[in-house]
Amino acid sequence: MLLHRQTLQHRATPEKPDAVYARKLQELIGGQYGEITVAMQYSFQAWNAHIPGKYKDLLFSTAAEEFGHVEMLATMVAQLLEKAPQGITEEAVQDDPTVAAVVGGTDVQEAIAAGAGARPTDSNGNPWQAGYVTASGNLLADFTANVNAEMQGRIQVARLYHMTDDAGVRELLAFLLARDTHHQNQWLAAARELQASGAEELPVPSNFPQSKEHQEYSYQAINFSDGEHMADGPWASGPAPDGIGEFTYIPTPPESARGRADAASHPARCRFYGTTDVPNVVEKTAGAVQDRLHRE
Amino acid sequence: MLLHRQTLQHRATPEKPDAVYARKLQELIGGQYGEITVAMQYSFQAWNAHIPGKYKDLLFSTAAEEFGHVEMLATMVAQLLEKAPQGITEEAVQDDPTVAAVVGGTDVQEAIAAGAGARPTDSNGNPWQAGYVTASGNLLADFTANVNAEMQGRIQVARLYHMTDDAGVRELLAFLLARDTHHQNQWLAAARELQASGAEELPVPSNFPQSKEHQEYSYQAINFSDGEHMADGPWASGPAPDGIGEFTYIPTPPESARGRADAASHPARCRFYGTTDVPNVVEKTAGAVQDRLHRE
Amino acid sequence: MLLHRQTLQHRATPEKPDAVYARKLQELIGGQYGEITVAMQYSFQAWNAHIPGKYKDLLFSTAAEEFGHVEMLATMVAQLLEKAPQGITEEAVQDDPTVAAVVGGTDVQEAIAAGAGARPTDSNGNPWQAGYVTASGNLLADFTANVNAEMQGRIQVARLYHMTDDAGVRELLAFLLARDTHHQNQWLAAARELQASGAEELPVPSNFPQSKEHQEYSYQAINFSDGEHMADGPWASGPAPDGIGEFTYIPTPPESARGRADAASHPARCRFYGTTDVPNVVEKTAGAVQDRLHRE
Amino acid sequence: MLLHRQTLQHRATPEKPDAVYARKLQELIGGQYGEITVAMQYSFQAWNAHIPGKYKDLLFSTAAEEFGHVEMLATMVAQLLEKAPQGITEEAVQDDPTVAAVVGGTDVQEAIAAGAGARPTDSNGNPWQAGYVTASGNLLADFTANVNAEMQGRIQVARLYHMTDDAGVRELLAFLLARDTHHQNQWLAAARELQASGAEELPVPSNFPQSKEHQEYSYQAINFSDGEHMADGPWASGPAPDGIGEFTYIPTPPESARGRADAASHPARCRFYGTTDVPNVVEKTAGAVQDRLHRE
Amino acid sequence: MLLHRQTLQHRATPEKPDAVYARKLQELIGGQYGEITVAMQYSFQAWNAHIPGKYKDLLFSTAAEEFGHVEMLATMVAQLLEKAPQGITEEAVQDDPTVAAVVGGTDVQEAIAAGAGARPTDSNGNPWQAGYVTASGNLLADFTANVNAEMQGRIQVARLYHMTDDAGVRELLAFLLARDTHHQNQWLAAARELQASGAEELPVPSNFPQSKEHQEYSYQAINFSDGEHMADGPWASGPAPDGIGEFTYIPTPPESARGRADAASHPARCRFYGTTDVPNVVEKTAGAVQDRLHRE
Amino acid sequence: MLLHRQTLQHRATPEKPDAVYARKLQELIGGQYGEITVAMQYSFQAWNAHIPGKYKDLLFSTAAEEFGHVEMLATMVAQLLEKAPQGITEEAVQDDPTVAAVVGGTDVQEAIAAGAGARPTDSNGNPWQAGYVTASGNLLADFTANVNAEMQGRIQVARLYHMTDDAGVRELLAFLLARDTHHQNQWLAAARELQASGAEELPVPSNFPQSKEHQEYSYQAINFSDGEHMADGPWASGPAPDGIGEFTYIPTPPESARGRADAASHPARCRFYGTTDVPNVVEKTAGAVQDRLHRE
Repeated sequence: MLLHRQTLQHRATPEKPDAVYARKLQELIGGQYGEITVAMQYSFQAWNAHIPGKYKDLLFSTAAEEFGHVEMLATMVAQLLEKAPQGITEEAVQDDPTVAAVVGGTDVQEAIAAGAGARPTDSNGNPWQAGYVTASGNLLADFTANVNAEMQGRIQVARLYHMTDDAGVRELLAFLLARDTHHQNQWLAAARELQASGAEELPVPSNFPQSKEHQEYSYQAINFSDGEHMADGPWASGPAPDGIGEFTYIPTPPESARGRADAASHPARCRFYGTTDVPNVVEKTAGAVQDRLHRE
Repeated sequence: MLLHRQTLQHRATPEKPDAVYARKLQELIGGQYGEITVAMQYSFQAWNAHIPGKYKDLLFSTAAEEFGHVEMLATMVAQLLEKAPQGITEEAVQDDPTVAAVVGGTDVQEAIAAGAGARPTDSNGNPWQAGYVTASGNLLADFTANVNAEMQGRIQVARLYHMTDDAGVRELLAFLLARDTHHQNQWLAAARELQASGAEELPVPSNFPQSKEHQEYSYQAINFSDGEHMADGPWASGPAPDGIGEFTYIPTPPESARGRADAASHPARCRFYGTTDVPNVVEKTAGAVQDRLHRE
Repeated sequence: MLLHRQTLQHRATPEKPDAVYARKLQELIGGQYGEITVAMQYSFQAWNAHIPGKYKDLLFSTAAEEFGHVEMLATMVAQLLEKAPQGITEEAVQDDPTVAAVVGGTDVQEAIAAGAGARPTDSNGNPWQAGYVTASGNLLADFTANVNAEMQGRIQVARLYHMTDDAGVRELLAFLLARDTHHQNQWLAAARELQASGAEELPVPSNFPQSKEHQEYSYQAINFSDGEHMADGPWASGPAPDGIGEFTYIPTPPESARGRADAASHPARCRFYGTTDVPNVVEKTAGAVQDRLHRE
Repeated sequence: MLLHRQTLQHRATPEKPDAVYARKLQELIGGQYGEITVAMQYSFQAWNAHIPGKYKDLLFSTAAEEFGHVEMLATMVAQLLEKAPQGITEEAVQDDPTVAAVVGGTDVQEAIAAGAGARPTDSNGNPWQAGYVTASGNLLADFTANVNAEMQGRIQVARLYHMTDDAGVRELLAFLLARDTHHQNQWLAAARELQASGAEELPVPSNFPQSKEHQEYSYQAINFSDGEHMADGPWASGPAPDGIGEFTYIPTPPESARGRADAASHPARCRFYGTTDVPNVVEKTAGAVQDRLHRE
Repeated sequence: MLLHRQTLQHRATPEKPDAVYARKLQELIGGQYGEITVAMQYSFQAWNAHIPGKYKDLLFSTAAEEFGHVEMLATMVAQLLEKAPQGITEEAVQDDPTVAAVVGGTDVQEAIAAGAGARPTDSNGNPWQAGYVTASGNLLADFTANVNAEMQGRIQVARLYHMTDDAGVRELLAFLLARDTHHQNQWLAAARELQASGAEELPVPSNFPQSKEHQEYSYQAINFSDGEHMADGPWASGPAPDGIGEFTYIPTPPESARGRADAASHPARCRFYGTTDVPNVVEKTAGAVQDRLHRE
Repeated sequence: MLLHRQTLQHRATPEKPDAVYARKLQELIGGQYGEITVAMQYSFQAWNAHIPGKYKDLLFSTAAEEFGHVEMLATMVAQLLEKAPQGITEEAVQDDPTVAAVVGGTDVQEAIAAGAGARPTDSNGNPWQAGYVTASGNLLADFTANVNAEMQGRIQVARLYHMTDDAGVRELLAFLLARDTHHQNQWLAAARELQASGAEELPVPSNFPQSKEHQEYSYQAINFSDGEHMADGPWASGPAPDGIGEFTYIPTPPESARGRADAASHPARCRFYGTTDVPNVVEKTAGAVQDRLHRE
């Protein structure tokens, strides 16, 4: 159950309106790594977690916090748009080049569709979509997804920090940066504990028996490019991070005789009307025979 | 530049057709964590990498390999569909319940649109889309994204392994599992080296000065739920993984007076026709005045 | 700010697993009119509301409740999937036709991607996307959007009620039906009060002066079909619901000489390489002249 | 059957080109509430209507009119783009700030992909998509969806009216505003008649017996926020608009013991490789036993 | 302007309901090459055509016909669903395997969202989207797009013809096949006339001067694969279809020294926080200098 | 299998940065007819081709080349962004109108998400999606799709050529134009050979017996518009391009009595809660009877 409290987690008030920047902030609301993504991702991870206790509690708590981050950003956007120009005439632009920048750089749907308000979209106007969400039920994989999300998110906030000099906006971003720092550390700590406790190990999923995979290929650094430096890294020799295998370097992909991409496939039905090597006779005889055999 | 070689990286031939399983394999081709995603993700990371040498070479190499994985899977799907039934009559189902399963469980577009072939879609028929791709230019964040992608991918292959008993399909999956094992290890090794060399550290991006973030919140485990066990993990006390901060636990979000979600915003333009606390007089007088002031 | 409470709003436990039905329930989670839609819609309406007080409070409250509905449904789906079959062999189907139904009718991504869990998608596997959300800043329009959402939602729950005889599932649906009843009534009551108080009236937006619209067309029921019964309804004669106009019926669209769809447009730039009535001479002379005139 | 007539419903000629405004007009063509949406929505409602006569005729007629509105807008956009600048050089911008505005604010695909023409997209360039369409077969719900669509549409036209001072554009918008006025009234009149005739009543769907819903919750205004004013509206006390229930106000969500979000789920298959409370032993023993029991 | 006529272009009545087939028919309504696509494509081509007369008239006429095809198919789907089963119990499946097939193979949203009606989606439930539409303003390119659309469409209808033995459905498909035959021929005829009249020639766009392209590469069949048979076709030697060039065959891509994918880029701003070869010192000194130089 | 070579196919270096143009170039990377589309389309056509030899080899080769084109464009974009301004202050715009143009016209996600890098999106920021791909298994249809793709692609490159005067960018575009010229010719040559060899003929699919279609409609140019010039083209009289039929012109669609769009459908289940002509009695009696009859 979610409950709403009307106080914001942090102050979210700009010094002055800036409709161009309002568009950019949309990335943190409805972008691939915006706050809606993490709020939804942690929620679905919590609902899909099969193990009660601290991990599930952590997921629920962080999910709720992230919904509150959406709220602060949406509140900020509404204020950045308070004096957003609605239209533009040629004269106005001639007088004041700033207006030209504003006209070109705003999210016009924030005006036309939302009436000077935030929208669940990214900085290019793409609607948020659930294809961004990861929730596999495997906590080590999912916590790694979360570390990534918090890293990408903190990078984007840091970039946006330098795209404004509004002290009020920076005040909020400085708070979000701090929380991203915490959440990066949090998911790393959780991932490490999962491994330390043996609940999940590398390679993920650790419960799948490696004996069933083709282990001769499990630690081969095969070079599919002609770049000369691939052999120079710790992924090409030495022990693998999973503590099990030892990396070897294969400079070019071996010529295998195990299969060819250019082999012909033989669709049983002539009635798919694909181009095959059967002569192009209407309702191909061979096909008709096959059809009969397959009782279609 | 990409060059094509007609040999497959590994054998990709099923024992017998299975149109229901062909649909499931689509997840590995065009799903969120399918081979198209990693091929495109590593490609864009390589093109966006600002630093020449081993990391860029590694990205190009792995990207090329993943395109070859798409090829093996597409080849497999085409063969699984070779005898796909095209239609269904009531009698056929009455005779043979297997037919019913097949009819219900196939990807009908593999028949109608591709003529018994693979498609760049996932197992629910959603077209692959580039919103799955991550390439930020920050290599530690992106390698973490890659570790996640390889973990999620290996989990999905492992699940699919148990959804068939076709030895030919399992042969290919066993190979893909091995390569996922390698790539999980590879990106982990690369991420560790980046940190060891000081090229990038935690929290990401390490080059943004932490003095600019609100550091009092940077290591606070604030509980936004009423779950009782959140304090029990290593994210609530002790040193943070970044080696900088020390976690503290805050059992409930502090009541802050710093901002309220229910405050009124004041759009300068009455002509957005939103509902405001100005009386609803046509072309609201107050608004008209504001408009004049803003010379619109 | 959003806070999470670990108790569910209502019991969400099925009598027994049913993976086919789990797919159907996804519609209520991530469909066009699922609970994610209304939770996000009411949230953005609250953040975009420019008027403090009861309407904003109502929006925040209802938004929070709807997030809790997502939670109950996701919890239900996880349990419906607890014994979901993972794969299928031909023998199993021959033995038991139920298996065939299950195989065909499940959401395979609930297994492959979520490991037997709920996903933020609809019953056809389409990811939820923010194009479903409406938040214009005009409360009468938005409350009407909400009435519609609650009507569509209640219809879908009612349909799903008859697609199962699991008493546990029906228990939850009976609760959701009741809440949809309340919310339908709630938004209707709010919309009526807005109008009664004069804050917003018909036609929406009431603050746009009707004198600026072509009022001769404002109450004309023009028939663009050859259906004979369009004149029979209260939209073709009598007073209009806005209390302002009087409907008249126009049996066929008048032949207007005011514009033609087949007129030629004259792109100034030959360099768009469209097909025009200028002769097809390379870098068309006329075009080059135009270009010079336009100083490009 | 649809027939095309080459006269436009209304004049659609701008005074002069304006590529920036052409982008904005796209919202009315391919936006969430643009003319394509209503044309398609009314068409599918007509095809899904199970009852012949005036409602079906009305839907067909209005659908056809809306396709004609797309045509007028597309014709207008083509003319607004007639002299669209194709490229931009630094010098041109230095000379004339207007050019800067134009460059920044145009839809570049109108030039690159359409060669100075309209596109089936919105003002942010998102392709129109059928997720915007509502057609449930329940006419009271669908007519309410239509009232909402006409309200949102009229708001957007009114906003766009003030974003230009081109008399030709405003001439067309004044016509569209009038038709939106009519259609708002039309769907309201139709919705009222449906209710007056008893064909459908509140709560929708009225044919589902309320005795099957948990009626104790059907008229409860439960406050999930700490906003103080939710009790002040007509949704918190007094008779509900459906004429059946009486609202009561519940200031905080009751603590229910009926279910918990943090309960463990128990996936029967260890082979989903999720993290569970079974010890992480390869091919978990308990799981293997379960598998055997379920004969997978 | 579009006008609706209530007679269908052709009979659209099945012999008996078939909810599984109803799902498949959705491909012809809302698929990539369904009737909505061609109706919208021809409409936008007409609106973007800069040349009045027969081509524009042809586009308008065919667009209108295709909308009528959507109507016949939607009418057909509604009837195929008339007796669609709503739910399913285990007993029912045990009794009747047909039910299993039906349950698995239907589009569940046709039931849940549309109440037994057609939807603007494809056979996998993906909403139709305008990314399918092509309208460039260049008529030779667009007519070629149309030939392709009619070919793909006719293939799909032909495939669907063999997926049913319902005489009523086949009656409609036989009509659609005939119209696809006509439209294939029609667009081919139009494309040929465009070329014969010199309005547009090969290569498209013919008005772009070939002297500006690197003509040494304009007729080279370069082999980027190791397939041995690429040299065997008429694209590798002899005159090119445009009547201008002569094909030559290049067996492997030349090693060019003109550029390298692994070169380093040098983002001027350290504040993008990407990984560069500048040492990872907080707010990198070099970067700060650059920033000053660029007056940011 | 795909192998990567670090040399580019052609030089891809601009004279100077231009962030506005970088956005436009995205159309050639991730647009509907960008290089990702053709690379993926030719790949899937190769994998779905059922006939070994020259056609399959040609598809693999061209697919590989197109991936290399993505690489050149992505490399170009990264360099165009090297000095991209990150933020903007009011003063900067007042000083320099060029900055205003840049701010408005850039793809802000290239900065925020990619850190000054290319993205798999189009020039309006829409993520690339696989709905653009065509691969039917019928080679004549697919080669026609390819001719269209190369025509649309060459038009877009030609338009973009005139949107810059950067000699480095034009150098690359001049190369791409040449390759598009070749590929247009290549697919035309391949399509002609398919027909000449009898492997596939018109109308596609030629293997479907025309006797099964309603041949009386197969060559009728029926006018669904009131445009007067439709009869003037070679599609209205004379022999059809397939060499089989003879066109006839039908000036208006015949009034057919074969079906009506306004007929009532009769959903068997009252429990879909649609509006029907059965009186609105709770759990409609007639419906209940029907339900019993259908043993649901």
